[in-house]
Amino acid sequence: MLESALRVLDTGRDRVEIIPTRRTEMATTAAELGIYADRLRRAQEELVRQGVDLLLVGPSSDFRYLTGHDAHLSERLTLLLLPREGNPTVVVPVLEAPTVADRRDLVDVHTWEETQAPSDLVATLAGDVAGKTVAVGDQLWSVFLLRLQAAMPGATWISATPTMRTLRMIKDFPELELLQDAARRTDDAWEEFITQPLAGQTEREALERLSALTRQRGLAGAWGLCASGPNSASPHHATSDRVIQPGDAVIFDWGGTIEGYYSDVTRTVHVGEPSDEFRRVYDIVYSANQATLDAVRPGVPCEALDEAARDLIAGEGYGAAFLHRVGHGLGLDVHEEPYLVAGNDLPLRAGMVFSDEPGIYLEGRFGVRIEDAVLCTDTGGERLNNATRELIIVG
Amino acid sequence: MLESALRVLDTGRDRVEIIPTRRTEMATTAAELGIYADRLRRAQEELVRQGVDLLLVGPSSDFRYLTGHDAHLSERLTLLLLPREGNPTVVVPVLEAPTVADRRDLVDVHTWEETQAPSDLVATLAGDVAGKTVAVGDQLWSVFLLRLQAAMPGATWISATPTMRTLRMIKDFPELELLQDAARRTDDAWEEFITQPLAGQTEREALERLSALTRQRGLAGAWGLCASGPNSASPHHATSDRVIQPGDAVIFDWGGTIEGYYSDVTRTVHVGEPSDEFRRVYDIVYSANQATLDAVRPGVPCEALDEAARDLIAGEGYGAAFLHRVGHGLGLDVHEEPYLVAGNDLPLRAGMVFSDEPGIYLEGRFGVRIEDAVLCTDTGGERLNNATRELIIVG
Repeated sequence: MLESALRVLDTGRDRVEIIPTRRTEMATTAAELGIYADRLRRAQEELVRQGVDLLLVGPSSDFRYLTGHDAHLSERLTLLLLPREGNPTVVVPVLEAPTVADRRDLVDVHTWEETQAPSDLVATLAGDVAGKTVAVGDQLWSVFLLRLQAAMPGATWISATPTMRTLRMIKDFPELELLQDAARRTDDAWEEFITQPLAGQTEREALERLSALTRQRGLAGAWGLCASGPNSASPHHATSDRVIQPGDAVIFDWGGTIEGYYSDVTRTVHVGEPSDEFRRVYDIVYSANQATLDAVRPGVPCEALDEAARDLIAGEGYGAAFLHRVGHGLGLDVHEEPYLVAGNDLPLRAGMVFSDEPGIYLEGRFGVRIEDAVLCTDTGGERLNNATRELIIVG
Repeated sequence: MLESALRVLDTGRDRVEIIPTRRTEMATTAAELGIYADRLRRAQEELVRQGVDLLLVGPSSDFRYLTGHDAHLSERLTLLLLPREGNPTVVVPVLEAPTVADRRDLVDVHTWEETQAPSDLVATLAGDVAGKTVAVGDQLWSVFLLRLQAAMPGATWISATPTMRTLRMIKDFPELELLQDAARRTDDAWEEFITQPLAGQTEREALERLSALTRQRGLAGAWGLCASGPNSASPHHATSDRVIQPGDAVIFDWGGTIEGYYSDVTRTVHVGEPSDEFRRVYDIVYSANQATLDAVRPGVPCEALDEAARDLIAGEGYGAAFLHRVGHGLGLDVHEEPYLVAGNDLPLRAGMVFSDEPGIYLEGRFGVRIEDAVLCTDTGGERLNNATRELIIVG
């Protein structure tokens, strides 16, 4: 299924090998680094276009996207400096220098010792920034930003979101393959998981079994929630020790990563025979999930997808019970741009990947959510997840 | 062992029950909330003492420390506002409101809708901050800080480190019990793990077995690294698919959490008979670990512990191969204040918990690190970890 999408998205660049972003014994080849050199170059083009002089990115998905290096987030500053022209530089604690040794053809590396102040090193490398605009990666810790603001006076500090989202929202071939792979393996885990009964297990036990099946299929960073019975009516319920019982709706929202790229799926099942109202609500959410998919097309504003689901649900009388936006971008972060939410008029483009996850939550009673990852192609939406969306009744 | 320490640390407050900070079906009792009300009150005293008008804390260990709530870190802003006097307030996305429902006796709760700008809500709640000093929790994402700085003009923005570390560095009874419990369970996992041979397994496989044993003992958030042979000479080596071989030094540095509180242990073993040099280096690191412990006493500056290990290692001719500080605080973060590093003259105090982890790294050959968590009591240092530090030779 994705093959068609990949053809549609072929923009002329050569198909490339999947990049092993986990550091292994294998040397990083020049071809692999070429992907990141290209991304850094495109980021510089964005800086010029957006009038930004310097981009600063700490350990985060942005860092990994630009360099392929899954930098260690800690109280010791690691930072990528990308000026609008000239070489990118990575500042790294000396004891982590070996982890970037294979990136020295991609970036200049400057190390700092345990007793040095890394923000002073960054200030020296950046030069005089008075009157200049410095964009900061979203997930940089405030403790670092405050130190950098003190060490680099006179600059205008802005968020790097506009720069980074322009690049990251449109997935390239290796990214799409990883997202499809992560989705498929997560679907596989579900198909095995749901052959077993749930009644008598705690939410935590059920989720642990699903997580284990997900990990067994090669996904790292397995995460998720299980919300049963009345808990299913709270969209962000924290998995508890509640025992799943006959009569419960049970929501599983989970995923994991392949080379840093996330899967994110939700399925709602029912333990024993459901009420007529549950069936009706399930059917509405099922239809809203389909309506959202049907609305996907390049040029359509993000908010139109939310509206498609919301109009359908409101038309059935449950508008007030659809508590959240219909979706979010998916990639190296489990939530990223674009956000499918009222007020976001950003037009969809081919290559965007996002969740399609309408839900209805009836407080104290039950909730239903159905979520797939969806790719926007030149001709419409294609689901990356294909585990059945039909209502499953379990023991 | 910890019992003596607890007696020493008894400052007059009643011994309290361990707090279940994971949300469960059980209602949160007033007595449990009292712990956090006390911490919030002490934080306000620090704000007054340090001339800070307002403290802003996002989802992080600081948030959990002050409220007992393990807030969800995401692109949707959740924020604790603590003025120097008056009620604490939590701003939370409306769909996460149920997760703080049991904190309404502790904090005022304000929710924001999907289409609202939460930084405007924070600005309204904070009132005019022109000329005032606002302290920001270290781990708040820059994207939020930049929006808050724009929405709240005229304030002086500083790091909340000085405020929060004053509170968090000195562990109270429930914290010490959790840290001791986490350490003991991690030691137990090691004792079982190390009865099996390592040769022929990859680093990843060996670490996965150790992680599984750690999880089986009830620790969440299991993390770690395994570095074998020449990889052991890189302190922050990323666990790889290298096959462990006879003749290898193998370092395991790992842990997990109990109710959010970390364990952090390192042990170095040798596969097959070691060289004389390896034995010699092992003995030096072993002695440096002990020398650090022996130097622990209230009033001693943090840097003196680093010096104790460094002097011993340098005296044996390996000074240049001890690449990092001797330790870091341990609690709700795996690295936190106090840092045991040259230049830090902060005096130790009873109730501090930190790692004691000297190491020697011989590039391209091998490394040795031995790490325990240590509690500073009124009379000296007490180890929380007691898995054997004697050299273990495995198959």
